[in-house]
Amino acid sequence: MNPVRSAAVIGLGLIGGSLARDLAARGTRVLAADLNATAVDDAIAQGIVTARVTDFAGVDAILVAVPVRQAAAVLEDIARRGTSARVVMDAGSTKALIVATASSLAIADRFVGCHPLAGDHRSGWAASRAGLFEDARVFLCSTPATTNDAIDLATRFWTGLGARPERIDAATHDDRVARTSHVPQVLSTALANAMAASGIAPGELGRGGRDMTRLAASSAEMWTDICLDNALALTAALGSYERNLSRLMAALEKKDAAELRSLFEEGRTWMTRR
Amino acid sequence: MNPVRSAAVIGLGLIGGSLARDLAARGTRVLAADLNATAVDDAIAQGIVTARVTDFAGVDAILVAVPVRQAAAVLEDIARRGTSARVVMDAGSTKALIVATASSLAIADRFVGCHPLAGDHRSGWAASRAGLFEDARVFLCSTPATTNDAIDLATRFWTGLGARPERIDAATHDDRVARTSHVPQVLSTALANAMAASGIAPGELGRGGRDMTRLAASSAEMWTDICLDNALALTAALGSYERNLSRLMAALEKKDAAELRSLFEEGRTWMTRR
Repeated sequence: MNPVRSAAVIGLGLIGGSLARDLAARGTRVLAADLNATAVDDAIAQGIVTARVTDFAGVDAILVAVPVRQAAAVLEDIARRGTSARVVMDAGSTKALIVATASSLAIADRFVGCHPLAGDHRSGWAASRAGLFEDARVFLCSTPATTNDAIDLATRFWTGLGARPERIDAATHDDRVARTSHVPQVLSTALANAMAASGIAPGELGRGGRDMTRLAASSAEMWTDICLDNALALTAALGSYERNLSRLMAALEKKDAAELRSLFEEGRTWMTRR
Repeated sequence: MNPVRSAAVIGLGLIGGSLARDLAARGTRVLAADLNATAVDDAIAQGIVTARVTDFAGVDAILVAVPVRQAAAVLEDIARRGTSARVVMDAGSTKALIVATASSLAIADRFVGCHPLAGDHRSGWAASRAGLFEDARVFLCSTPATTNDAIDLATRFWTGLGARPERIDAATHDDRVARTSHVPQVLSTALANAMAASGIAPGELGRGGRDMTRLAASSAEMWTDICLDNALALTAALGSYERNLSRLMAALEKKDAAELRSLFEEGRTWMTRR
C-alpha cells in the first residue's frame, strides 16, 4: 500500500518508469506522460499505467521525472493548468534551482523537491525496474511555502516504496552531491576520454579500470544538464579534488615514498570509516 | 594438471597464496616462503603447501610474488644460491625494472616476468582464493637471454590455471598498465582524499561514488612501490588524464553545453566500443 491512491508520472525513464512499476504493484492508479510515446504505450500494455495524463485533476500526487533542465518548464505548465494534487515532486539530482523555481509558482505550497539516490549509468524506460528504490536514500527539499501535509505525504510516499527519505536544505544538498556524485562522474568521463586518446580499448581494463570508467557510459544529455545546473558547487568540488590529485603528483615527481605512502594511507583510512 | 610438478612460491599474499591453492589443487607440490610465518603455517596446515622453502634445488618453477620493490632482492638471492628450476617468474605490476634486473643475473635465461591481471583492492594470504586466475590475462615479458623452453613452460603454467598468457615488451607493458591500472588507482585515492577533506563519510555515497573510491582501499605500501617503480610512465599517463579533466572543467566554466555534451559523448562512445 502506498498513501497515494492515484499519481501522475511525467517522464517514464529509469526513475519515472521504476516509480510507475512500484506504485502500480502497490495498488496506486498511475497516469503517465513521456515524449517517447512508445514508453507510455508499453507501460499501458503491461498494465502498469492506466492511461495517458490529460490533466492534473483527480490525482493525489504528481511526480516530475524528466531531465533536470526540463523540469522547471514542466512545473510551470502544471501550475498554469492547475491541480488538486496534495503533493508535487520532482526527482532531479540538483535541488537549489528547481526549489527556487517552484517557490515562485502557485504550487509552491505543495512542492517537495526529491532526489532519490537510485540512478545508475543506464537510463530510459527499458532500464526501469521494480524495487529500484528499495533501501535508497531520498533527499527531500521544501520551498518556504511547502505545507507539513505535503512533506508528510512525500515522506510516506517514499517510505511506502521501501526508500529512506530525509530532509535537507537545497544548497547543502547540491554541495554534497557535487562532491559525492557529480565529481565522480566527471572524473570517470575524463579517464575514459584519456584512455580513448591513448588508443586503449575497454576490453584491456582489469576490474579496477572497469569500475573507474563505468560511469562514463551514462547519458551525456543528462550529465550536461546536471553539470550546468550545479556548475558553481561542482566547480568548487572539482577544485578540491584537483588539489588532492596535485599532492599525489608532486610526491610522485619528487619520488617521495613517505609522502606517497601517507597519501595512499589517507584514502585507505577514510575508506574503512563507518 | 599443471606442467610444473613442483614449485617454490615466494610470498603468500593475494597472488602467491592463490597460486599455491590452484597449484596444489592440480597436483603440483608447493613449497613456500613468506615474511609472515603464520601464512605459511596456515597453508601447511590446510595441506596447500608441503613445506617451507629451504633451497631452490629440486623445483621445476619458482614464483616470486612479493611487493614490486622487494622482487629484485629476492631474484638476486635466488641467483646467488643457484637453482635447477626451468623457469623463474615474478608477478609484479610493473615489468621494465625487474626484467632489467633479471637480465643481469645468472637466471636471465630462465626468467619470465609475469603480470597476472588478477589483483583487486584486497591483499594478503587471507584474501587469496582458488580460481583467481580463471580467464585472467597474464602479460609475459622476457629478458634478451630467456630461452624458448622457459617461455613455453611459463605459457603452459598459466594456461594450466585457466589464465590467458600473452607476450609483450616490458616498456610497452609499463606504459599500458600506467594508463589502464595505475592512473585509475591514483584518481581513486585522490577522490577519496578529497572526500575525506570535505567531511563526507563513505556511507553517504551512491553506487557511482562507491565504485569510484573502491580502489582507494588498496594497500598503501604496494601502491607506493608500484608508483615509484613506474614513475615515468605514470607521470606521462597522469598528464594525459589531467588534460582531459581540464577540457571538461573549461567547458563547465564557460557553461558551454555543446562542448560538455560532446566530451561526455566521447567517453560514452568509447565505453560502447568492443
